[in-house]
Amino acid sequence: MNVVVWNEFRHEKENQVVADIYPEGIHGAIAAFLQKAGHNVTTATLDEEQHGLTDDVLNQADVLVWWGHKAHDEVQEEIAEKVKQRVLEGMGLVVLHSGHFSKVFKKLMGTTCDLKWREADEKERIWVVDPSHPITEGIGEYIEIEKEEMYGEHFDIPTPDELIFVSWFEGGEVFRSGATFKRGRGNIFYFRPGHETYPTYYHEQVQKVIQNGVQWAANKGTPKFVYGNAQPLEEIKEK
Amino acid sequence: MNVVVWNEFRHEKENQVVADIYPEGIHGAIAAFLQKAGHNVTTATLDEEQHGLTDDVLNQADVLVWWGHKAHDEVQEEIAEKVKQRVLEGMGLVVLHSGHFSKVFKKLMGTTCDLKWREADEKERIWVVDPSHPITEGIGEYIEIEKEEMYGEHFDIPTPDELIFVSWFEGGEVFRSGATFKRGRGNIFYFRPGHETYPTYYHEQVQKVIQNGVQWAANKGTPKFVYGNAQPLEEIKEK
Amino acid sequence: MNVVVWNEFRHEKENQVVADIYPEGIHGAIAAFLQKAGHNVTTATLDEEQHGLTDDVLNQADVLVWWGHKAHDEVQEEIAEKVKQRVLEGMGLVVLHSGHFSKVFKKLMGTTCDLKWREADEKERIWVVDPSHPITEGIGEYIEIEKEEMYGEHFDIPTPDELIFVSWFEGGEVFRSGATFKRGRGNIFYFRPGHETYPTYYHEQVQKVIQNGVQWAANKGTPKFVYGNAQPLEEIKEK
Amino acid sequence: MNVVVWNEFRHEKENQVVADIYPEGIHGAIAAFLQKAGHNVTTATLDEEQHGLTDDVLNQADVLVWWGHKAHDEVQEEIAEKVKQRVLEGMGLVVLHSGHFSKVFKKLMGTTCDLKWREADEKERIWVVDPSHPITEGIGEYIEIEKEEMYGEHFDIPTPDELIFVSWFEGGEVFRSGATFKRGRGNIFYFRPGHETYPTYYHEQVQKVIQNGVQWAANKGTPKFVYGNAQPLEEIKEK
Repeated sequence: MNVVVWNEFRHEKENQVVADIYPEGIHGAIAAFLQKAGHNVTTATLDEEQHGLTDDVLNQADVLVWWGHKAHDEVQEEIAEKVKQRVLEGMGLVVLHSGHFSKVFKKLMGTTCDLKWREADEKERIWVVDPSHPITEGIGEYIEIEKEEMYGEHFDIPTPDELIFVSWFEGGEVFRSGATFKRGRGNIFYFRPGHETYPTYYHEQVQKVIQNGVQWAANKGTPKFVYGNAQPLEEIKEK
Repeated sequence: MNVVVWNEFRHEKENQVVADIYPEGIHGAIAAFLQKAGHNVTTATLDEEQHGLTDDVLNQADVLVWWGHKAHDEVQEEIAEKVKQRVLEGMGLVVLHSGHFSKVFKKLMGTTCDLKWREADEKERIWVVDPSHPITEGIGEYIEIEKEEMYGEHFDIPTPDELIFVSWFEGGEVFRSGATFKRGRGNIFYFRPGHETYPTYYHEQVQKVIQNGVQWAANKGTPKFVYGNAQPLEEIKEK
Repeated sequence: MNVVVWNEFRHEKENQVVADIYPEGIHGAIAAFLQKAGHNVTTATLDEEQHGLTDDVLNQADVLVWWGHKAHDEVQEEIAEKVKQRVLEGMGLVVLHSGHFSKVFKKLMGTTCDLKWREADEKERIWVVDPSHPITEGIGEYIEIEKEEMYGEHFDIPTPDELIFVSWFEGGEVFRSGATFKRGRGNIFYFRPGHETYPTYYHEQVQKVIQNGVQWAANKGTPKFVYGNAQPLEEIKEK
Repeated sequence: MNVVVWNEFRHEKENQVVADIYPEGIHGAIAAFLQKAGHNVTTATLDEEQHGLTDDVLNQADVLVWWGHKAHDEVQEEIAEKVKQRVLEGMGLVVLHSGHFSKVFKKLMGTTCDLKWREADEKERIWVVDPSHPITEGIGEYIEIEKEEMYGEHFDIPTPDELIFVSWFEGGEVFRSGATFKRGRGNIFYFRPGHETYPTYYHEQVQKVIQNGVQWAANKGTPKFVYGNAQPLEEIKEK
């Protein structure tokens, strides 16, 4: 399976705290554990030509993982649109954390994707609410993260196709932190954790969920539809 | 309740068949039965200034009904965007027939909204599949329309929040022809029938469904959220 | 609208703390604010003949509100089954708090309806996650209850048709505390708060949600279906 | 993967037409193509001791396939209940055709599961309405079956978690003929076709869907929950 990990890759260059946590970039950390899981993984970042998302890269990708935060606006409209089209055609998409505000995710959702947030080193408990879903395989009742940024409701997304995780935060908020969405032939998984100043992507259970999400999101050959003017049945033709 | 019926209003000017069926325009026919149902109804059309959708009109609308077909591209991007925002803020939206391809609906859905179609004077049977839903009040097991344009699956929309009607067509197709979607504080109802060359909007049961849809879509005062940087609980503050 | 408030009515007779909070019984407190909202309200309790749920009472009920806790097993199988049938036929059902373990709710859900719980005087924050839903009308971003029993995930219910509220608890848990389910022609609303040793049903926002739920759950005349051997269309008949 | 194919196995003994089509029984035909797909398949039938569903058989089953029609009532209450529990604990369940009226399915759904039907040698077209779902892998836009029994709406089931197929019938009806449901840790797939007097289970695309359904329904290790009295966090303990 071909997996492309896309990262904005700006915090790592501008903030020493982030650089220390992710010396190979957030994409590097994510690519590493997905590679170990047996996938064929490449990375792409904002400042590359076409943000590293050429037609070739996208056409061969089974799943695209997306992390962005402070430079959503710098993603070219045309490329965001192309990524959206590829999702509709069947490329899986895993959107992480602040990627909720990416052009690609907002275009696919049709809503503002806004939320509440707070940076206060809070404990997060990510509870499983759908223990039949393959994305929860190998996970316990909940995942605990000692310190994370808080995301709180209301999260302005369409009703998810499946709600898998709900987060509890020390400060009094809850958040629908793991949810799936179908768009065309594409499967989308949003997963909340991963603020850049915390080592969240080294957390084993977080890694396991992202691996499961990548596995789940890949399309293995579902039908392609022909749209537009349709042929009638014989009975109609003869009328 | 303030209801605005929007119509492209082009077929009626260019095609005598349509003009004969809807001498006051499709918007006129729809406005008439909604008025009878007790609503405060106004209309707006493509060729008016700002397509008749000024800030004032939109801000006072509880529900907007939308019919368009051959001139979706002529709807100004800025106005389509404004309508979308108003839906997210709580204005109800009832999208009819070929409105599936309108800019507003596509923006809110995030998909192509494509489908199969055929003009062959086919019989349509619109079956109720959710007999607990208020939009079906006063309707029988199905609505039969003697002749209509066919719309067939796959209909490229996100999974509806509620699937209320499924159509059967003589020529061999089915279609999810009545479906609801929540986006932000807004309620959206898509209802399939209403090709311009048939007198569908005079069909009593079709009228009843549209009335029910308007009633259902109106937001009567649900919570407004504050997004962004959140205040912590006392315990967190004191840390 | 005819509303029947059913209560087990045992805690109030056996526990002075509960009797002091609800001198007219939990059913009395709930009936009082529903009556104020303009409904025609009666009550029924476990120790009455047929638990107060005669055919007459059920046939005339638009909505049944259910509170039970320690004596679920004493509800006669036959009456639980009759209530279930009435829901499928179109009677609305509002299930409160420990009613999650009632025979009626379990029969309608098909799952164990089990959950985690803790009695520790915890703060609860009931967050709105669906601000387009009429059950949230007149409510703020969340409802705060100073002290309540905790209910935690996993809550073993089928995926709700609509998830409206998610609770946060001081001790680290979350709970899907407001959810709707459609069964046949019946609308079901489950709402979590209301442990018997707290004055929760005097909380104005809790009352508002229950009123909204009753309003929402009532069926106003949706289609009734004929099941079984179906008549063919003419074309098929002539074959 | 261990798959158990359960069949009532009565029509085959009593009706020569059915016996001629399925000389090894419907279970034999289904077991054969699932075996070819690489599963470890066994069968069980109504007239065996405990209907062939001993604790041992159920505890080792990853997925149970169910076909029944005329003798639903002869399935012992206790065994139906045991099968339901196993589904809630994580055994996958694929319910075929008239199995919609089986005790097991009705217990898990909480509704009557009733529908319209007609035996008139009608053409059926099973349209894919969710082309992102793995159960549609390898299938075209629709599956056509030359002659089948008709099942029509309203199908009295809870809203499916996923609606994958909708059938069109020559005589004027539609039917939600492929749908998934989550119950506890269990995945359930209902698939409509398969009346005993037609050779439907030899249809390659029907076989492919059932294989996909079995694959999808198996639980590969999702979390098991502890229910009941919960432990508090440290902060709560110290209160």
